[in-house]
Amino acid sequence: MEENFKTIDFFEDTLVLLDQRALPKRVTYVHCTTYKEVEFAIRDMIVRGAPAIGATAAYGVYLAAREFSSLHNQTDDEAFSAAMEDAASYLIKSRPTAVNLAWAVDLMLKEYKRLKEESIDTILSSLLNLADTIKREDIQTNRMMGKIGSALIPEKATILTHCNTGALATAGWGTALGVIKTAFEEGKDIFVYADETRPRLQGARLTAWELTQAGIPSALISDSVAATLIRDGKIDLVILGGDRVAANGDVCNKIGTFMLSVLCKVYGVPFYSAVPVSTIDFSIASGKDIPIELRASEEVTRIGSEQIAPDGMQVYNPAFDVTPNENVTGIITEKGILYPPYTSSIEEIRKTLQ
Amino acid sequence: MEENFKTIDFFEDTLVLLDQRALPKRVTYVHCTTYKEVEFAIRDMIVRGAPAIGATAAYGVYLAAREFSSLHNQTDDEAFSAAMEDAASYLIKSRPTAVNLAWAVDLMLKEYKRLKEESIDTILSSLLNLADTIKREDIQTNRMMGKIGSALIPEKATILTHCNTGALATAGWGTALGVIKTAFEEGKDIFVYADETRPRLQGARLTAWELTQAGIPSALISDSVAATLIRDGKIDLVILGGDRVAANGDVCNKIGTFMLSVLCKVYGVPFYSAVPVSTIDFSIASGKDIPIELRASEEVTRIGSEQIAPDGMQVYNPAFDVTPNENVTGIITEKGILYPPYTSSIEEIRKTLQ
Repeated sequence: MEENFKTIDFFEDTLVLLDQRALPKRVTYVHCTTYKEVEFAIRDMIVRGAPAIGATAAYGVYLAAREFSSLHNQTDDEAFSAAMEDAASYLIKSRPTAVNLAWAVDLMLKEYKRLKEESIDTILSSLLNLADTIKREDIQTNRMMGKIGSALIPEKATILTHCNTGALATAGWGTALGVIKTAFEEGKDIFVYADETRPRLQGARLTAWELTQAGIPSALISDSVAATLIRDGKIDLVILGGDRVAANGDVCNKIGTFMLSVLCKVYGVPFYSAVPVSTIDFSIASGKDIPIELRASEEVTRIGSEQIAPDGMQVYNPAFDVTPNENVTGIITEKGILYPPYTSSIEEIRKTLQ
Repeated sequence: MEENFKTIDFFEDTLVLLDQRALPKRVTYVHCTTYKEVEFAIRDMIVRGAPAIGATAAYGVYLAAREFSSLHNQTDDEAFSAAMEDAASYLIKSRPTAVNLAWAVDLMLKEYKRLKEESIDTILSSLLNLADTIKREDIQTNRMMGKIGSALIPEKATILTHCNTGALATAGWGTALGVIKTAFEEGKDIFVYADETRPRLQGARLTAWELTQAGIPSALISDSVAATLIRDGKIDLVILGGDRVAANGDVCNKIGTFMLSVLCKVYGVPFYSAVPVSTIDFSIASGKDIPIELRASEEVTRIGSEQIAPDGMQVYNPAFDVTPNENVTGIITEKGILYPPYTSSIEEIRKTLQ
């Protein structure tokens, strides 16, 4: 089973992104040839999802290097280096919450610094190579996470998920939705409830689209329907993604995640976050230190061309919330499932990376 | 302080309803002159909100009596009576959950039966009189509930509300939003968070509109934002309405209410339902016996002309949920605030009605 679409593609120095703003109505693609176009694509959510943003931004750094190549000088690095640093921080600022973005950009910058005394051709081909590797490894990571996580899904399970964590949120396959797809691919008879995920409706627009594309039995619900399903024993487990996981296992994820975690805790339903290790921010002790992006009012007051709230109404629109580690049953990664106490299980993972 | 709009008006044998489907974009009115037009207006949610539906349906019974008046015969009641019973059950079926609808229609039918040997003119004028009384008394009830409930709202309170329970949900002033408006009218320095209330967006479309019309400081949020506000101590109390309250104090209300009640219980935030006594269904022992209306998929998959989920996606769309009495701090009525144990406090109220 593989997707019949590509979220992120790159050829002939052009980044081709599936325009997620147009789904589920139209499958169209946006072409980026400059790092500023890449920044806009991330900020305007043409591409979204922590791992997808990471891979996209990596190509953004490569495109910046191409744009600035005339500044490059093997003996005096200053002008080119300053331009690259500027481009990197410009890209990182496009979305503040997900850690994969900064992680991928930093990897790319490090690669450039390692090679800064080489020719520009060597630098460019190495950077493109690394961006391709980040994209390819994300898919491998997701496949591995899928296999590991699927073990948690019993036969005939009904699974609730939130936001979009599928092929559209990653370079391919998906994180939490990748786990669900793997269980389905393995022949398990599952049913999926997808939260629509206001305000951007990634569940309705994207997850529902991926589920129907994959032929997985499923139903869409308004976000506030989940509570009664959880109470009434209709949900066997919740699996969702994560935009940044702190060193203590606090999970920052799409707004609405915390609400689900409280209901799962009260009614004894397992609650899992599926994230690649690159989503863990070892430098952050707890979720309190994660910046929460506040987005524009119009995301709440308008849907497409439709005005759904009166002019002049104030809106509070945080894109994410933080679920405390005590509400998290386990964290599914490509290196295994982490369990509480997370401070030690995450520390173990950190050691394997050094 | 009074509204500059009328939710329900009646003159020259025409029921005039503010078309709530068009808000907040346009203030337009729909005219009904037959009981079938009234049924459609309730079913299609031109008018909604348990008390507003009750008053509307009362006029529907009057219009039915007018339409069938040629069948009336003071000595043989059969044909007219059968037609009236048919019209009554037709009206009652328009929305299954709210009890005020059946309550108002039954009151009207009883009035007709009391007068069935009178002339048709007497019957018609008495029925119109009773419908007017139901509407007028609803406003008086709401004003009384407002005064009683406002005592629960401290100075500088931040209040969270759900769905629409204002003048638009009633014959005027409102239930839960009426309590909030009364506190504001009394000069209290309050702030209101309004849940947008998917899928029909009554919070965004209607409550936000009423709040801006009344000049009450407020902000609109996606439904899943409430959880973090409650956890973070940003909400002093939740006040919302009710579509049917069981004899044990279980509150059936707009989908999303139960979720809020769990969060309030976990984080120690007071949770109140404000309902007229006519919303209490003394015949129903617990919320388990309340039928939950399932509505069309399109409410979730489309917003206006905008398609937000793929074709062919299954949708589970319950309009209401039941909050168990143990999650309810108090029930605000026009006869005082009811506290647990509700079986006895509600029984006390029932006795005063006999």
